[in-house]
Amino acid sequence: MADNLNTMLIHRPTLLLDKEKCLQNIERMTAKASWHHLNFRPHFKTHQSAEIGNWFKSFGVQAITVSSVKMAEYFAYHGWKDIFIAFPFNLLELGVVNKFDASVKLSIEVVDAVSTAFIGLSAARPLGIYIEIDTGHHRTGLLPDDHSEISDILDEISAHPLLHFEGFLTHAGQSYNARNKGQVINIHHSSIKKLLSTVLPDSGFRIPDCRFSIGDTPCCSLAEDFSGINEVRPGNFIFYDIMQQQIGSCSFEQIAVALACPVVSTHPERQEVLIHGGAVHLSLDHISDEHGRRIYGLVTELTIKGWGPPMPGAYVKSLSQEHGVLSIPGNMISHFKPGQVVGILPIHSCLTAAAMREYQTLDGEIITMMP
Amino acid sequence: MADNLNTMLIHRPTLLLDKEKCLQNIERMTAKASWHHLNFRPHFKTHQSAEIGNWFKSFGVQAITVSSVKMAEYFAYHGWKDIFIAFPFNLLELGVVNKFDASVKLSIEVVDAVSTAFIGLSAARPLGIYIEIDTGHHRTGLLPDDHSEISDILDEISAHPLLHFEGFLTHAGQSYNARNKGQVINIHHSSIKKLLSTVLPDSGFRIPDCRFSIGDTPCCSLAEDFSGINEVRPGNFIFYDIMQQQIGSCSFEQIAVALACPVVSTHPERQEVLIHGGAVHLSLDHISDEHGRRIYGLVTELTIKGWGPPMPGAYVKSLSQEHGVLSIPGNMISHFKPGQVVGILPIHSCLTAAAMREYQTLDGEIITMMP
Repeated sequence: MADNLNTMLIHRPTLLLDKEKCLQNIERMTAKASWHHLNFRPHFKTHQSAEIGNWFKSFGVQAITVSSVKMAEYFAYHGWKDIFIAFPFNLLELGVVNKFDASVKLSIEVVDAVSTAFIGLSAARPLGIYIEIDTGHHRTGLLPDDHSEISDILDEISAHPLLHFEGFLTHAGQSYNARNKGQVINIHHSSIKKLLSTVLPDSGFRIPDCRFSIGDTPCCSLAEDFSGINEVRPGNFIFYDIMQQQIGSCSFEQIAVALACPVVSTHPERQEVLIHGGAVHLSLDHISDEHGRRIYGLVTELTIKGWGPPMPGAYVKSLSQEHGVLSIPGNMISHFKPGQVVGILPIHSCLTAAAMREYQTLDGEIITMMP
Repeated sequence: MADNLNTMLIHRPTLLLDKEKCLQNIERMTAKASWHHLNFRPHFKTHQSAEIGNWFKSFGVQAITVSSVKMAEYFAYHGWKDIFIAFPFNLLELGVVNKFDASVKLSIEVVDAVSTAFIGLSAARPLGIYIEIDTGHHRTGLLPDDHSEISDILDEISAHPLLHFEGFLTHAGQSYNARNKGQVINIHHSSIKKLLSTVLPDSGFRIPDCRFSIGDTPCCSLAEDFSGINEVRPGNFIFYDIMQQQIGSCSFEQIAVALACPVVSTHPERQEVLIHGGAVHLSLDHISDEHGRRIYGLVTELTIKGWGPPMPGAYVKSLSQEHGVLSIPGNMISHFKPGQVVGILPIHSCLTAAAMREYQTLDGEIITMMP
């Protein structure tokens, strides 16, 4: 592999960020949300960066989603005024939430009435409340037909003047098991149908205008019918990754991050190359191929313009703390030498970014993340 | 579960460190190395903390192992004077290595003659050289009978006055597949036999006194015969974890770290509890139980003195970025309530520490790690 301007500056595992691809990914999703008249509340847990957050502002985004109170603090500090913490509210953080600047419109999520009552009694500032509905992912949330608990939550919200009901959200994370567009679309419609069934006339609820919010990147990327929904909260789409490419949410060309890793040894006898780049850099997320082999990343050549398509047949076979083992087809292995730098397209870009804690753009600019 | 002094101070995922257990783990391994007349060069990649590193000094430890040049820089800055970077040397970091303070005795690892020649030509300061031998782990290193390449490396070392030969190391990482002491001991002896076979009389080498160095925590914890070996480099033993307990390297009581996680919702209908504590806190490392289920951590009750034994039948079933799903036996689930804090014993403490970046002792002291 040829040396190039980028790799000559890299001597350690470095998370490369293609800003142009990022901006295209943001633009596409923003335009889609606008076309479908959806409130666009992108999830910032993927990039966790104030600077990257600012890129969204130029597309008119004003409301965001985060996954922890700590992340809400960070983005509030960096000027965001409409923040939703899309995670069953951690009661131990009420003291922190109460101290948020009054200029921030803060929304939280609840999944039971007892916790909602506790929040109502202890809240010292206005809080928007979303109720999470489990539409098939079975990680958290109330079942759509759990009218008794939902009704109790709505009563608790009404009873406390600092709380106001925002709407219902779901995360159809089961879409990550899909492997083609048809499967994703089926999950999308089934999930929306369940979410909306929460307020069917026979539920007895009198719900004012409220949000019906969905969040997963596969459905948000592939669906074209959002009837009944008025908010989307995808996050991963800004970078995409191999998991999303396998699902069909994106092409390889849309993936906007790659981990640059130095080659440290080659093992032609077993068609392997060792890189500096391990579990602490990529995370251990993986997919399985048709032979049941675990794949922790795909291998790409770094170029002067960023990186190329995945090398056919080459993949990250195993990871330990700092070591990565690449499986390389026999005819390619002679191209690898210690002292070179290769690119790894991550399986799950959110976790790779969270592990790396900073980005380097193709222009060499360092972009920091939440500490 | 009862509230207690520790958990009342915790409101976010927090890596608890039991300093007394740590010190006992250090003392035991230090005493064992001393008893067997082994140079003790503990691996600091597990804790990555200057303060914890200092605990070793009180047991007389002066030489350490690290897994990256960055980690070597950090510990050199914090006063360590004998540092071995046990990773196939990354040629791109020669510039950094050349700038290390002259008072530091720095050792690196090589696995091929061409790279050794390059290091020899470019080195601007003395470098100790270890050669890694692959004794069955097949991650990196030369096969013990690859006399031609080993001989070429030794020739390159001799040809460059700034390089001096330190010895041979191996990492019998295959011991992580063992599940009882007998299996570990078999791997230990087989690995040492292969390591020593590198310099059998018929190899033709004239090797002066040098190090024969082994590194994995299972073998260092369980073996009692170190004949032929004169250095050990274990790292994980300072904390241990569920993986080591499963292998047989330690008891549950010896595990010195636990991730404190707030409970955010309970799902009695499917015997699950949701915690704030996900892949970005624990890492995705896992073991499989006898039914093939993946286990990402075991669940323990936090107490005023730290934490108790694992709750029978309770385990971390799945992790997403910030969510952890606990599987809890039916008769236990009523003990869990939102707003409580539970302890998770990690599967792989090195990766959990690397993800968390700081510790909190049972006295509430915060211990920082390498940035």
